Amino acid sequence: TRVKFPVCPATRTYTQPIRFQSVPTPTNFGHTISTMASKEPAPNCKVFLAGTIAKGLLAEVAEGLSKLDTKPKLVGFLANDDPAARMYADWSAKTCIENGFDFDLRIVGKEEIEERILAANTDSTIHGIIVYYPIFPRPSGQDRYIQQIVALEKDVEGLSHRYVFNMYQNIRFLDLPTNSLKSILPCTPLAVVKVLEYLQIYNSILPYGNRLFGKTITVINRSEVVGRPLAALLANDGAKVFSVDLDGVQIFTRGQGIKKSHHEVHVQDESFTIKDCLPISDVVISGVPGDKYKVDLSLVRDGAVCVNFSSEKNFDSPAVKEKASIYIPAIGKVTIAVLLRNLLRLVQNQNAGKKVVEGGQETSNGSVSN
Amino acid sequence: TRVKFPVCPATRTYTQPIRFQSVPTPTNFGHTISTMASKEPAPNCKVFLAGTIAKGLLAEVAEGLSKLDTKPKLVGFLANDDPAARMYADWSAKTCIENGFDFDLRIVGKEEIEERILAANTDSTIHGIIVYYPIFPRPSGQDRYIQQIVALEKDVEGLSHRYVFNMYQNIRFLDLPTNSLKSILPCTPLAVVKVLEYLQIYNSILPYGNRLFGKTITVINRSEVVGRPLAALLANDGAKVFSVDLDGVQIFTRGQGIKKSHHEVHVQDESFTIKDCLPISDVVISGVPGDKYKVDLSLVRDGAVCVNFSSEKNFDSPAVKEKASIYIPAIGKVTIAVLLRNLLRLVQNQNAGKKVVEGGQETSNGSVSN
Repeated sequence: TRVKFPVCPATRTYTQPIRFQSVPTPTNFGHTISTMASKEPAPNCKVFLAGTIAKGLLAEVAEGLSKLDTKPKLVGFLANDDPAARMYADWSAKTCIENGFDFDLRIVGKEEIEERILAANTDSTIHGIIVYYPIFPRPSGQDRYIQQIVALEKDVEGLSHRYVFNMYQNIRFLDLPTNSLKSILPCTPLAVVKVLEYLQIYNSILPYGNRLFGKTITVINRSEVVGRPLAALLANDGAKVFSVDLDGVQIFTRGQGIKKSHHEVHVQDESFTIKDCLPISDVVISGVPGDKYKVDLSLVRDGAVCVNFSSEKNFDSPAVKEKASIYIPAIGKVTIAVLLRNLLRLVQNQNAGKKVVEGGQETSNGSVSN
Repeated sequence: TRVKFPVCPATRTYTQPIRFQSVPTPTNFGHTISTMASKEPAPNCKVFLAGTIAKGLLAEVAEGLSKLDTKPKLVGFLANDDPAARMYADWSAKTCIENGFDFDLRIVGKEEIEERILAANTDSTIHGIIVYYPIFPRPSGQDRYIQQIVALEKDVEGLSHRYVFNMYQNIRFLDLPTNSLKSILPCTPLAVVKVLEYLQIYNSILPYGNRLFGKTITVINRSEVVGRPLAALLANDGAKVFSVDLDGVQIFTRGQGIKKSHHEVHVQDESFTIKDCLPISDVVISGVPGDKYKVDLSLVRDGAVCVNFSSEKNFDSPAVKEKASIYIPAIGKVTIAVLLRNLLRLVQNQNAGKKVVEGGQETSNGSVSN
């Protein structure tokens, strides 16, 4: 039996358990499928698994690793008894070790988490720190305080305010204008970007930073840890993004001719819904937690690219293949590969031996991809 | 002064001198441009010239040529005193010789054209034949008769009925099921395909023959020599194509999930016009003769790819750059490169030494590109 890929607990913390009502699958899909084997030709949807897409990233990580003198060490702090968090910790451990990194899981009490992180911050044998959330009850907001405790140069998840600020402002380096130290991007949103690069939705004939120009993308989920940063990243790369959640639709865009250096957000009124977004979207990305929500495929454009980043299937699996040109059922293995890539980048930044210049506010319109 | 790239006379023969009314450019574009230098950032439209795109094709031709024992010879028949036809003949001569082919221009009388072509058909020193149309007055239909006189194995323009039939039926080889002899595609439509491949509108992660799945393309011009075959080629490769001309809009498509082996044509009623096509098109391809017609850019989707194959500018040049992600002002040099590529392919087919199997009607869903 296969191990079910765990949900990142951080993702679960900030999203509602079930954000959308269930949409019944149109019956005509069922009909098409039932007669498919006998009469209908097979659909032309191409399905790519995350493991396949992750290979290139892991090869890139291996090459970077081979140029280092020391074996980078990631330390994970687990301060809860959430079985999903434990499973995610075990997965990060396994993937780290398989790919030539050291991993040290430290199980600590809630009351000592702050001191233990501070100690790890100054321990020169530790190169990256990952904290498995949730730790404190959500209403307290204390987890966000803990996120800011992790040293900038060891924050493998890119959750420090500086990294988050840079991402939203489309600032891609820490040391402007030298541009030798890359800013760190959050793992799951960056994993989706890497998936879209692999699928050539990013058009490499366009300049870095503009490679989604002309693409219309719907992102279903606007959580602070995944959906909203993802919409921002895609819009900063040139896409027009419909960010959809229970509280409405927002358009993230750099405007006509993508002349703005970073995206702006236009909140739509209630009359503009997901029904207006899906028929004109080249790419539909969905990450709604829970097994109730299904994207209404009758609204999706024929030949669209469909990407699921929820741990549950947001796209009805036989039906989506009748309509999509490309379908990505899950991205978990890409997310873990991106985690290692971030760790490598932290080590490279540390080795550059430069003090991170504080307060660089200019926009460097490079690419997320390099 | 630069030599103006000539219009292929064949194209001019079958299209109306001016097929569309002029569309005034919206005044807001003018405003944007006039203030651009001082206040507005430069637009992010990427312009590619045909010469750049042709390079790869010419390199491919050079490589194929280096493997041949003999220098292929193209013979051109000029049986009119049209200066544009003469200019096109001179251009083909120049490009042939520059790229290592022999070229022989034969100026003949209308009354002897048929006999001269028949003689060339059986002359083993001649590998390809091109005829510069128009020869006879258009209403007579006699030029179409002449097109069928050219031997199939020497028809570098792909105008023989067999080639045309194969193209519409999405049959990509002459010798099914062996599939060693490639069918020849008409130069200008194939040049547009090559442009779209270069621009990565064809997504190479999808299987051969389906690489435009999910793309919506408007083709303005439905002439028999360019517009209609182009719409068919693009639809056969998976696109949904709006074919627009004075007599209305037709949709060329392989249907939902592109399950059909070749395209079907759906004639739209008068209420469906170019205004319904442009806002939802990823790519807009225009080839309207004459200098009066301009594509209404206010209807074009932000970030669309715009390709002009008319000898005149169908897109207002500063304005299109304010809206398009990619703009191709002309494709003439790609068309000539495709002509040489077709000639090489004819020689390769001739060298395969096989009798072309007549009557292969099955569809081989390979790619146009190889």
